Amino acid sequence: MSELARLETPALLVDRVKLEANWRRLSQHIASLGCTLRLHVKTAKSLELTRSLHGSAAAPIAVSTLKEAEAFAAGGYRDILYAVAIAPKKLERAAALARSGVRLTVVLDSLELARAVAGSALPVLIEIDSDGHRAGVRPDDARLVAIAAEIARGGATVAGVMTHAGASYDCRGIEAIRSMARRERDAVVHAAKRLREAGHAAPVVSVGSTPTATFIDDLSGVTEVRAGVFVFQDLVMAGLEVCATDDIALSVLASVIGHQRDKGWAITDAGWMALSRDRGTARQPLDQGYGMVCDAAGRPLEDLIVSETNQEHGIVAHRSGDPRRLPELPVGTLLRILPNHACATAAQFERYHVLEPGGQIERTWERVSGW
Amino acid sequence: MSELARLETPALLVDRVKLEANWRRLSQHIASLGCTLRLHVKTAKSLELTRSLHGSAAAPIAVSTLKEAEAFAAGGYRDILYAVAIAPKKLERAAALARSGVRLTVVLDSLELARAVAGSALPVLIEIDSDGHRAGVRPDDARLVAIAAEIARGGATVAGVMTHAGASYDCRGIEAIRSMARRERDAVVHAAKRLREAGHAAPVVSVGSTPTATFIDDLSGVTEVRAGVFVFQDLVMAGLEVCATDDIALSVLASVIGHQRDKGWAITDAGWMALSRDRGTARQPLDQGYGMVCDAAGRPLEDLIVSETNQEHGIVAHRSGDPRRLPELPVGTLLRILPNHACATAAQFERYHVLEPGGQIERTWERVSGW
Repeated sequence: MSELARLETPALLVDRVKLEANWRRLSQHIASLGCTLRLHVKTAKSLELTRSLHGSAAAPIAVSTLKEAEAFAAGGYRDILYAVAIAPKKLERAAALARSGVRLTVVLDSLELARAVAGSALPVLIEIDSDGHRAGVRPDDARLVAIAAEIARGGATVAGVMTHAGASYDCRGIEAIRSMARRERDAVVHAAKRLREAGHAAPVVSVGSTPTATFIDDLSGVTEVRAGVFVFQDLVMAGLEVCATDDIALSVLASVIGHQRDKGWAITDAGWMALSRDRGTARQPLDQGYGMVCDAAGRPLEDLIVSETNQEHGIVAHRSGDPRRLPELPVGTLLRILPNHACATAAQFERYHVLEPGGQIERTWERVSGW
Repeated sequence: MSELARLETPALLVDRVKLEANWRRLSQHIASLGCTLRLHVKTAKSLELTRSLHGSAAAPIAVSTLKEAEAFAAGGYRDILYAVAIAPKKLERAAALARSGVRLTVVLDSLELARAVAGSALPVLIEIDSDGHRAGVRPDDARLVAIAAEIARGGATVAGVMTHAGASYDCRGIEAIRSMARRERDAVVHAAKRLREAGHAAPVVSVGSTPTATFIDDLSGVTEVRAGVFVFQDLVMAGLEVCATDDIALSVLASVIGHQRDKGWAITDAGWMALSRDRGTARQPLDQGYGMVCDAAGRPLEDLIVSETNQEHGIVAHRSGDPRRLPELPVGTLLRILPNHACATAAQFERYHVLEPGGQIERTWERVSGW
């Protein structure tokens, strides 16, 4: 614990043993289904962390911003999918990255953007809507083939199709997630078939979300799976049975700074600025507040959660609200808070402190932020 | 608009005319009540922005982190209140700042911390709980005098008392806020009186929140008011009648990247990573989703809100949900999103782009982040 005592609080910790176990588990699962795992680096947003998993920069990655693409390209990555439909004003920046030798694949789902990429020679994936929750053309939509024709006419490459079944976050139970995963797969496989019938090679068939990637049992017709959250896991994933609470590799180190003992509150210096405002478990059967509270060794303090936050204050209370059930937790006590949503909590910090197997902290891994 | 078209999206904009008008309005109000305004820089977290309002670094400020204190001290500020109870492990860093010539005042509300500051010679404010929502000792609590005695015994200075009526955010109507403001004032004035009766000079009597500062009509016995959000204002403040929507100086510039026209959705590149996960208006009579949508000139697009967000996607829809009421908004259209909570949205960015009265953008103001 003396290692943790040296850190300023709040601080972001990543447990390297858990991180690597999470990475291995999903990598092996996807490999066993004959597919490539394209790590989505939007969660960790760290070149050093990502290279620690890949061992080299030869692996394919997905990014959520061009800033990530540029940072990972500078770190040697050469196969990068920018997995958000590209705003027209970003095309020049994307083209510059492509000219530097990166295979940068872009995504779109409209005729307007298909016209906008004309002349860019970028590989393009058409986004498919497999679950109704966000972007994409439906697999049977007549526009799919029209968009592909427009891309080809402009000189860009119809590289294939991609989808993200984000609705898997709202599934209840493993079977529901698996069923969503099959729907996700079937949507893109069908869309790719339509493109091939229309004369496009469309070699790439890309799916992905951490829940669907975890429970899919057959990826026939799919070439790659994108996922990001799984490297850390989080309380939303635990609520979905995607992981156990003990698999969560990310936590926020906080100090107790006061109490309201008659209310059963310990107050910490990790407010929403550290934990984020994400309340992803609020719509799950077990609402974890702003996070589950562990001791400094990472052992959950039974039924303590962060019940409320201000900017730089977190209120720790027993889940029951019973003031008598708050343990002592003197001022200065170090706690570790497990996050609702790893992407959102990690985004509040500039770097990770890497917790080694023996509890030492020997290095930090920097994060990319901004756009 | 050509100025905005040159920015990458999402980008954070601050309208300098509105910023300065907000600053003037509250400064004059507090001055008219015979009090000092101690700007809380936790909202804007920008030395350049703050100096543009103050004209010099001679003004008093409040900070929410030692990182802010250090950044503002480096920029010349010398009267800094660190307005969060200080974790024991932060005392050495605070003392170092004080040794550099800054009058750094710290806050605490426990005997444990009163003992921890012994030997530091720091000025200390005792935090008073005026509204039951967070930290502080109640004004009548016997511990108040015991804490002051402990501070004095250790050689630190009992500089006075402070409180923050954060519960004002949950008030309905101006009269309710004004009543909360009086309660906030009365709590610290009473606490200061008790400290003086016990032999402490306790010269500082500090209150503050943007709602209470806006509507308080008598600050007798109070020496300073802390507020931060008012410089930008936001939709939560508009919902509280603290400001008009048109006063909001902060917005996020976004690009339309696609549509689901049958659902009445325009999809933008400003998701929760740009807007934050703050849903502060969800508990107000008018829920603004993840933000109110304006055109690029800042004019509200009647009844369009950001109804849902993913990490890098925002879904813009008509408040009614009626798909026919979404205007055209072609791909590439620039929109400006007004935030629920200025502190949370601004924290997602590294800098402000400063919108000048003529619509030009000639400079950026950097933000401080981290701890």
